Amino acid sequence: MKILHERRGDIDAELLSALDGEPAELYDAASHLVKAGGKRHRPVMTLLASEAVGGDPKGALKAAASVELVHTFSLVQDDVFDNDHLRRGVSSVHVGWDEDTAILASDLLFSKAFETLANSASDSRRVVRALGRLAVGCNRITEGQAMDMSTPSDEEEYLAMIDRKTAELHALACGVGGMLGGGTDGEVEALEEFGRKSGLAFQIKDDVLDLTTDEEELGKPRGSDLAEGKLTLIVLHGLEHGDADVEELFERAKTGDRDAVPELTDALRRDGHVAYAEERAEELLSDARESLESLSETRAKSSLLEVSGYMVRRNF
Amino acid sequence: MKILHERRGDIDAELLSALDGEPAELYDAASHLVKAGGKRHRPVMTLLASEAVGGDPKGALKAAASVELVHTFSLVQDDVFDNDHLRRGVSSVHVGWDEDTAILASDLLFSKAFETLANSASDSRRVVRALGRLAVGCNRITEGQAMDMSTPSDEEEYLAMIDRKTAELHALACGVGGMLGGGTDGEVEALEEFGRKSGLAFQIKDDVLDLTTDEEELGKPRGSDLAEGKLTLIVLHGLEHGDADVEELFERAKTGDRDAVPELTDALRRDGHVAYAEERAEELLSDARESLESLSETRAKSSLLEVSGYMVRRNF
Repeated sequence: MKILHERRGDIDAELLSALDGEPAELYDAASHLVKAGGKRHRPVMTLLASEAVGGDPKGALKAAASVELVHTFSLVQDDVFDNDHLRRGVSSVHVGWDEDTAILASDLLFSKAFETLANSASDSRRVVRALGRLAVGCNRITEGQAMDMSTPSDEEEYLAMIDRKTAELHALACGVGGMLGGGTDGEVEALEEFGRKSGLAFQIKDDVLDLTTDEEELGKPRGSDLAEGKLTLIVLHGLEHGDADVEELFERAKTGDRDAVPELTDALRRDGHVAYAEERAEELLSDARESLESLSETRAKSSLLEVSGYMVRRNF
Repeated sequence: MKILHERRGDIDAELLSALDGEPAELYDAASHLVKAGGKRHRPVMTLLASEAVGGDPKGALKAAASVELVHTFSLVQDDVFDNDHLRRGVSSVHVGWDEDTAILASDLLFSKAFETLANSASDSRRVVRALGRLAVGCNRITEGQAMDMSTPSDEEEYLAMIDRKTAELHALACGVGGMLGGGTDGEVEALEEFGRKSGLAFQIKDDVLDLTTDEEELGKPRGSDLAEGKLTLIVLHGLEHGDADVEELFERAKTGDRDAVPELTDALRRDGHVAYAEERAEELLSDARESLESLSETRAKSSLLEVSGYMVRRNF
């Protein structure tokens, strides 16, 4: 996508400058996943949200980098918790180094996010507000990560978990952009709502892709959620609707039967549970887009709508 | 000490209010060590530093709590890295819960520190400056923790490590207090220097106490540094001065010989290496106190000097 490509250079320059330091081993571990790739759609949303409320295009660059630093922090820890070995086509940090170094790398990414945002060249009141928002968002991401360690009993609980673990970061990405751009409370609220809804849609699509994409394109093992016995909206829909195949295969997959994973994947597609999740993602995307109706028609707003479409309709 | 006792109530109320939330298991794990005790000398230093430059006594309370939250964050992770089971007389967080929950609890403590500081009722420029200082301090604490994972080759390297891992938090505790209190650059610099030097002295005294205090008073196993093969200033002094007993016993302790720990402790005391560390701590304390000479004589300054004496001359 052109807009992601155009803005990437400036964002990456900020990221790499934040992650240059000593001891080299710590900074290498912290910058490993940043260098390995990633779509950068969250920081681009920050830039666009700022511009959509009339902010200076360069004024939100540090805020954008801070959002990507928090995202990377959560990826590093997520791989530790799930013991995933592959991320963005390279080894995860705790595999390339060790668990202690991965935790320290995540700590560094975290504090660098706050340092970077604090260095924003903007009005102090706006910067304090954005820093407070980033901190509250980080609380919620951690709450979501903790919720993800127990099994959701229904779709509602699952949605409450991904609202914190995933959508929160999209909400704050848009929110801090709006704050630094000098948006009104109403504008910031609309941007947050847009980020949250498109973030939920993004995560549901991510669950779909985990079942439908080739491992090479995905950069991690296919069906890894199922192999770990993790419940997603797709599986919950199957279980809540009494799909006997899904019930039986999910039990087998959970107890470590690797053969059950491709069979379960097939059943979830065949019986319409994947299609259900895709519909929910489209509904949320549509709700997200409605949230922006109150904002003036600008090039930045069009780009935000375009990015949200890309997030939810991507094929890998 | 009276001053620590007097200020504790307000600080603890801030801490407990920051650590009240859902999911309960996460918040319980995060507040576990806060409730278990601690001297609170760092947050008290923040309050006093603010008052020493003419700040409102209540204005730095949230900053003080944020410093203690960062301290608790580092304790939780330190116990994970060293696999220490006992802290402040209770089980460490990863023992009472599990490692993943301990890491998430530390994440929450971290972001709550920034949220709390961002909510300071003070001039926005001061708050942004303090938030930036807190973030830079956290970078350095993590760098120090990473340095602590390799073996220092001499006293200089050891001091560089504790400067980041321990003294940095004391420096920033005083620095953010000075910033929120509206101190001049010179005053903030003097307070940071005072915090750093007294923090170094505090850590060296901590190493001494690890060898000289009863386990019950210490709240953790005596000689735990030695048992883990960790080099402190005391052991480095023995090794650098060719003390054959220290060399032999340290090799034995490192390879898991538990009987070597009390023998090594005796040798380090008998051969003057503990006394050397105590002298260095006294010198640093004296340097720390000199740093404050440029500040006006206030009750807060006297209390800061008193707290630094307590930190270095305590017997447990």
